[in-house]
Amino acid sequence: MMLCTMEPRFCETDALGHINNTVVPMWFETARTPIFEVFNPGQDLKKWNMILRKMDVDFIAQIYYGHPVEIRTRIGHIGSSSFTFEHEAWQRDELVAKGSAVMIYFDYVKQCKQEITPALRAELEKQR
Amino acid sequence: MMLCTMEPRFCETDALGHINNTVVPMWFETARTPIFEVFNPGQDLKKWNMILRKMDVDFIAQIYYGHPVEIRTRIGHIGSSSFTFEHEAWQRDELVAKGSAVMIYFDYVKQCKQEITPALRAELEKQR
Amino acid sequence: MMLCTMEPRFCETDALGHINNTVVPMWFETARTPIFEVFNPGQDLKKWNMILRKMDVDFIAQIYYGHPVEIRTRIGHIGSSSFTFEHEAWQRDELVAKGSAVMIYFDYVKQCKQEITPALRAELEKQR
Amino acid sequence: MMLCTMEPRFCETDALGHINNTVVPMWFETARTPIFEVFNPGQDLKKWNMILRKMDVDFIAQIYYGHPVEIRTRIGHIGSSSFTFEHEAWQRDELVAKGSAVMIYFDYVKQCKQEITPALRAELEKQR
Repeated sequence: MMLCTMEPRFCETDALGHINNTVVPMWFETARTPIFEVFNPGQDLKKWNMILRKMDVDFIAQIYYGHPVEIRTRIGHIGSSSFTFEHEAWQRDELVAKGSAVMIYFDYVKQCKQEITPALRAELEKQR
Repeated sequence: MMLCTMEPRFCETDALGHINNTVVPMWFETARTPIFEVFNPGQDLKKWNMILRKMDVDFIAQIYYGHPVEIRTRIGHIGSSSFTFEHEAWQRDELVAKGSAVMIYFDYVKQCKQEITPALRAELEKQR
Repeated sequence: MMLCTMEPRFCETDALGHINNTVVPMWFETARTPIFEVFNPGQDLKKWNMILRKMDVDFIAQIYYGHPVEIRTRIGHIGSSSFTFEHEAWQRDELVAKGSAVMIYFDYVKQCKQEITPALRAELEKQR
Repeated sequence: MMLCTMEPRFCETDALGHINNTVVPMWFETARTPIFEVFNPGQDLKKWNMILRKMDVDFIAQIYYGHPVEIRTRIGHIGSSSFTFEHEAWQRDELVAKGSAVMIYFDYVKQCKQEITPALRAELEKQR
């Protein structure tokens, strides 16, 4: 499992007084950083090799400003050229949101998907 | 069907040279405005009565800066206190993303869901 | 003068019930698009030739969700390789924010500023 | 001096491959949190008592994804009901941006500015 902690920003609240729902996908994107690093050590933006295929978020409870949010991320299904992140957002010991994201291992030069190598698969398996 | 057009902002691009995937949920939120207006005429933020239960987005093709994006939104399933938005994003005659959002008709004072009235249901039916 | 109209997004509000102050620089950036087009026709992102040197915003009145905001932009000082945008944001006939942005005509390949040509200067002069 | 560290988010990059300039005001807002806490202990959003009067940012060097940014914040001028934040953003031992923000101590119920008390002034003086 991969952990990261987000401090909600004041500008991430909305007029209802909570964190706006469009913020959660940004936090989940940040939570995927350790895997970006595995696939592209040093994360050179010119060598990027991931593309998001789809994502979903369930909003379970209101998320508040002023309290840190822990994002817990696991790798779910691993296919031949794509795999799934399973994210959970926890605030004050409560599950406030969860979601998944399907990411494709992608060759931006050839504009096509790539096969996940055994070495990369082994790294993904560590985060199940 | 409800239509709205978004002009991608330069700040919405990312280092891959396209619109970042976290932007699409913001566009889809904006596309829901006509229904916010139906449920809360004048959209007084102190009388807000909608809460997002979940959302998903499929990213079908890269979205470019410099070309308008049309968001086409229909109402899908209508339950007793919730209903579904079906969104599509089109750019240069191509479907580039689609997604759905489940919205609950919510009483923020009592902190509970409300029954969708026949009048509101009739308005939703017009946008199927 | 260049005009553009922004519809405040729900996600751009904050917990105080108004548009968050960090949103205004994004609107002002969008208002600079016609000049981006003058300097880089077609706005090919790989040929970008502008860099922001500094910006400031005065927040004059609260900005509300639910009412369009007109951004009025003029070109102010024009130097040899940089020039200034003067922005105003108006909502319901009230000046709600104003600001300026100093932009440098920049060669990203050589990583140095460029001289503004007479033809470009003439285009800038039209927007004073 | 107040310190906070921001990890640039992938979604904060833009098509030029660096952090977009509209992101810096969000980071600076977050850097003001310790003073929000001084003026409104617990930061109850319903008791908020600060309003931003103006801000400016100088962009000194390109800001990169993949390296933390330290925000160093001091209090500058302290007036009778307003005061100034002086922010600097440092990345890899280089000053990449700096800016200021004038904040008013504000009574949202009466919609008017408030006098900074000697106790609050003493707290501000500690961060000069």
